[in-house]
Amino acid sequence: MSLSQNRRGFASDNNAGVHPDILTALTEVNDGHVIAYGDDPYTEKASAQLREIFGQETEVFFVFIGTAANVLGLSTVTQSYHAVICPETAHINVDECGAPEKFSGCKLLTCSTPDGKLTVDMIASHMHGIGFEHHVQPRMVSITQATELGTVYTVDEIREIARYTHEHGMLLHMDGARISNAAVSLGSDFYEMTGGAGVDVLSFGGTKNGMMYGEAIIFFDKALCKDFKYRRKQGMQLASKMRYIAAQFSVFLENELWKENASHANRMAKKLYASVKDIPGLEVTRQVESNAVFARIPSHIITALQDEFFFYVWDEELSEVRWMCSFDTTEADIESFASLLRSML
Amino acid sequence: MSLSQNRRGFASDNNAGVHPDILTALTEVNDGHVIAYGDDPYTEKASAQLREIFGQETEVFFVFIGTAANVLGLSTVTQSYHAVICPETAHINVDECGAPEKFSGCKLLTCSTPDGKLTVDMIASHMHGIGFEHHVQPRMVSITQATELGTVYTVDEIREIARYTHEHGMLLHMDGARISNAAVSLGSDFYEMTGGAGVDVLSFGGTKNGMMYGEAIIFFDKALCKDFKYRRKQGMQLASKMRYIAAQFSVFLENELWKENASHANRMAKKLYASVKDIPGLEVTRQVESNAVFARIPSHIITALQDEFFFYVWDEELSEVRWMCSFDTTEADIESFASLLRSML
Amino acid sequence: MSLSQNRRGFASDNNAGVHPDILTALTEVNDGHVIAYGDDPYTEKASAQLREIFGQETEVFFVFIGTAANVLGLSTVTQSYHAVICPETAHINVDECGAPEKFSGCKLLTCSTPDGKLTVDMIASHMHGIGFEHHVQPRMVSITQATELGTVYTVDEIREIARYTHEHGMLLHMDGARISNAAVSLGSDFYEMTGGAGVDVLSFGGTKNGMMYGEAIIFFDKALCKDFKYRRKQGMQLASKMRYIAAQFSVFLENELWKENASHANRMAKKLYASVKDIPGLEVTRQVESNAVFARIPSHIITALQDEFFFYVWDEELSEVRWMCSFDTTEADIESFASLLRSML
Amino acid sequence: MSLSQNRRGFASDNNAGVHPDILTALTEVNDGHVIAYGDDPYTEKASAQLREIFGQETEVFFVFIGTAANVLGLSTVTQSYHAVICPETAHINVDECGAPEKFSGCKLLTCSTPDGKLTVDMIASHMHGIGFEHHVQPRMVSITQATELGTVYTVDEIREIARYTHEHGMLLHMDGARISNAAVSLGSDFYEMTGGAGVDVLSFGGTKNGMMYGEAIIFFDKALCKDFKYRRKQGMQLASKMRYIAAQFSVFLENELWKENASHANRMAKKLYASVKDIPGLEVTRQVESNAVFARIPSHIITALQDEFFFYVWDEELSEVRWMCSFDTTEADIESFASLLRSML
Repeated sequence: MSLSQNRRGFASDNNAGVHPDILTALTEVNDGHVIAYGDDPYTEKASAQLREIFGQETEVFFVFIGTAANVLGLSTVTQSYHAVICPETAHINVDECGAPEKFSGCKLLTCSTPDGKLTVDMIASHMHGIGFEHHVQPRMVSITQATELGTVYTVDEIREIARYTHEHGMLLHMDGARISNAAVSLGSDFYEMTGGAGVDVLSFGGTKNGMMYGEAIIFFDKALCKDFKYRRKQGMQLASKMRYIAAQFSVFLENELWKENASHANRMAKKLYASVKDIPGLEVTRQVESNAVFARIPSHIITALQDEFFFYVWDEELSEVRWMCSFDTTEADIESFASLLRSML
Repeated sequence: MSLSQNRRGFASDNNAGVHPDILTALTEVNDGHVIAYGDDPYTEKASAQLREIFGQETEVFFVFIGTAANVLGLSTVTQSYHAVICPETAHINVDECGAPEKFSGCKLLTCSTPDGKLTVDMIASHMHGIGFEHHVQPRMVSITQATELGTVYTVDEIREIARYTHEHGMLLHMDGARISNAAVSLGSDFYEMTGGAGVDVLSFGGTKNGMMYGEAIIFFDKALCKDFKYRRKQGMQLASKMRYIAAQFSVFLENELWKENASHANRMAKKLYASVKDIPGLEVTRQVESNAVFARIPSHIITALQDEFFFYVWDEELSEVRWMCSFDTTEADIESFASLLRSML
Repeated sequence: MSLSQNRRGFASDNNAGVHPDILTALTEVNDGHVIAYGDDPYTEKASAQLREIFGQETEVFFVFIGTAANVLGLSTVTQSYHAVICPETAHINVDECGAPEKFSGCKLLTCSTPDGKLTVDMIASHMHGIGFEHHVQPRMVSITQATELGTVYTVDEIREIARYTHEHGMLLHMDGARISNAAVSLGSDFYEMTGGAGVDVLSFGGTKNGMMYGEAIIFFDKALCKDFKYRRKQGMQLASKMRYIAAQFSVFLENELWKENASHANRMAKKLYASVKDIPGLEVTRQVESNAVFARIPSHIITALQDEFFFYVWDEELSEVRWMCSFDTTEADIESFASLLRSML
Repeated sequence: MSLSQNRRGFASDNNAGVHPDILTALTEVNDGHVIAYGDDPYTEKASAQLREIFGQETEVFFVFIGTAANVLGLSTVTQSYHAVICPETAHINVDECGAPEKFSGCKLLTCSTPDGKLTVDMIASHMHGIGFEHHVQPRMVSITQATELGTVYTVDEIREIARYTHEHGMLLHMDGARISNAAVSLGSDFYEMTGGAGVDVLSFGGTKNGMMYGEAIIFFDKALCKDFKYRRKQGMQLASKMRYIAAQFSVFLENELWKENASHANRMAKKLYASVKDIPGLEVTRQVESNAVFARIPSHIITALQDEFFFYVWDEELSEVRWMCSFDTTEADIESFASLLRSML
């Protein structure tokens, strides 16, 4: 594929580059020597910022990517005979090439959902064989906020899942690869919909929202992660030059860059939705609650459309496509795209 | 530890920051959108540069860190009942928190060495139980170039190990976290002492030599790594915004930045050696062949010395310490340090 | 539970004891010393008998139990990023406490079935993401013969699954824990519905049909299992006193004890079915094709009925129970049970 | 190898058959149905007998083989970043094809020993890097009683190792594949040299001492094994027809069959030692403390000697061989063997 012009499209928020403030932050911490592997003042500062947001009782760790945050988060609180209950569409189930199973040994028990969101009833459908040694034992529930389908759990929905999860001796994990988009969508702060709602382990992502690399894992109870440092190292996720991950998080958090970026991306998605929803022959298929728009379009136009603005087909059979907006999507991008689409239909 | 001034020390080459050219490279590729996960022109360019160096027959992959390069390199060509023969001092044995065992299932068979360098005789001492199902089966030999003790294998030494390794149906892995320092030390090009000498899998590192993050794995025979892409993803080492790793490698290679940095670090180590070797009460304990100086010094001066220039004790019992030079070590650093040391002894 | 009298029930065919001929066989091979771990004439004899049945090109190994046969069979031909497609009800999915995931790293992709039997369409529903590194890669299809629901694949059904499986570069595994019951049910010989129909790896069980312990794994292509001996040892399934497993298989096979036992168990199931099917308030829920009868009965009679003849509830919500017949079930057992059941309803 | 006559040799105590009382026991429990997977009166009885010996506070589980007892014992109390300290000669290190690493993820840290016995000093040599995330963390010490070299730890030696182990926050595992031979050798009861001396987890073996199959794992603190039942099932070690393992243990323990068998085997080893020690050209190389005799003999006689009485070469280079006596070795066997040996030298 010719991308010589690095033309913006709607393929994924991680096709975007890095916000300029993030790049600047990398340069600002570049001076001199600091202890490697995270025992440095920049890492301490970013950790303190996260504890400021999520609570002083939390424990904060940095890793390279979201898959690692998810997998190490799960592994740390499970044993190999445990099971993790999640939606069929969860990133941990579909997009991590079996890393959860390989690294933790656990089985994923999946639920079919209409919208990417788990409910208590779905979780309950897997709660059998408890104490029976022939069965894997459910130990964790994992939800994604915002979901892979662009939908967003309300704080109450998360609370209800957390209540059920804890009542049944399990823990609640949240994959927050797009947590900023969800927070903006709900008008919630980060804590309210995570630890405040009963989440035990959070993968807090920034790469899809303007960072270069790096993800944080937040444990809301320190007792859960006493040995996490060994698991991170053994999980090949301990960065030597940690200051450059920390610096990104600091600027991401301190000027509410996360909010600026996510608000923009969500707004662009709303605009995209508004611009295309009435085009005949096109059907928007999911609630637009964060930075994604899903739609069915005639299959014969897909390739030509992709040539101008790259995006992925979500479901070949249904001719359903996904359009992701990102922090750098422009109004002009939306207008050109909608206009092109309109002209094709 | 107060590091507010980010004072340079001799703790490790990964306590150093990032070379300015690398930082610049990150900015230069930041424009617009490219496909995530490595299907982008920057990754293609960096891969082509590496194939230029290592041979068109090689296959090149990027991961985040050296531990991952080692572990995934080993895992890809072994099965869980295999064994990997390496020196007792190998990074894979001592410094990866059991990641090789956890991820590959393999046992490491270690050899005691005087200088961190494996020999054919040492390898041969583990070649028993072949074909006997009660024993793990040796499948790989792993050497580090330059070694963890700062020594360097000659090209002939590598050839001899490769010959034995292949004759016995095994593969040769090289941990090249400091391969630039070794190349400079030998006056060898990269290929001559790797694929040219019989190495099958190479972890090619840059982070200890001025990069921010990112490591390459080079397979010299494509047949060995047909499924590596799945292993990398499952191994939680597939970067979404790959262009920023690729950009670092491009600048690292294209202007011979690697050579400039490594030459400097090695020269500083030689200067450090020259400056301290005759100090009474100090004994240099290893050949200074790359960017490390090992020495025994009286234990009572260690803490005070570390307060000024941080470094690590290598062997508490022997009072042996390690001083690493890096791309940004200055002549003045060496002079101040040597002078301080002299004043203490 | 008081079982002082070891009263026969319908809980499971592995609640039964051991056929007297099997016990005799153990005594007959007890004389003197033979090489441990399977290099003995008894193991050679039993292996030859299995090769006689399944083909001289097959490779035969003994392990302790069915779970191990399944898990090692799968592990030997997969890598950790592969997936195994199976029915939701498969023993490997439900009854092995996650051993397949733990040992192989693979993900199981499950299909909802009405009768425990996989079809090509079900398999096809999982055939996406091929070559896409974010997804696990389907490598194996696993079917159970007779199924966990007592149903039996016809030879043609197996052939059709094998055809599709092989066309898509996958391998076909059969869990034959109750293969004797299936063979008798179909009037098929073992080969016709396994290797003859395209099965690549077979777990061949005897414990549920009158043996004490021991299971065979049959690889129909030797190339698939060149390293199996290491996997068996590492999988903790290499018996030291192998002759006692081999002796059981020899007598199981040589006098068609397998057929005698399975025919009897199947006949008893047919008789049970005939005896209860018309009882009002009872509904037989599955085809009775092997040695199991599934039925819905009023939940209030279950406990009292279990007190006389133990059995398991299959689905609490549906009040569906499972009654297994075994080689030692008597006509009188059936008559007493049916009569008791009738009196309760 | 022709073994048509099943001639007794000195290859291994597991080349021997099964004691007649064990065979009888299998028949005696064969009547009727009992619940599978260990919820039966025979398993309860054997467990009670073991608790009688090892303490009411212990938890007892049965598995198929010694490798599994070792591996599951280790896995249950470790996490993947832990290390297990053991002698280089340990069965877990040399003879289990990497099963401990594969199943637990742990690294084995080995100690070279003159006699197969660990000492506190050897253990201490591995106690560094504690709390340092780059290193595996020592969590368990494993000793073998009697050792693979036929030597036996005194009760005081075990106590001293246990004291050090516990003081350093670790647990002590004993591989008791030949624990009966050790108990007889010391004149100790089982408890005194296990739980009584500080052992936390014991692999209690019977197969090398006249049983057919089956091994017990004893946890001396129930808190250590709360989830063992899941690990055993996932570890493919849960026998369906458990009564036949239990029955063997019952007869093994209740009439002190273990002592009768082990006393005999040890006595035969002493007799063998006495018969050969003065033969010129032969040198006994290890203390004869249990049922093994190790000796150096001229390499040119080995094959001819093996043709009459099979045994294994222990160390090819040293021309050291191992002769194991078993419960069924006869005085005549010893006399013929010694006489043949004498005639050859």
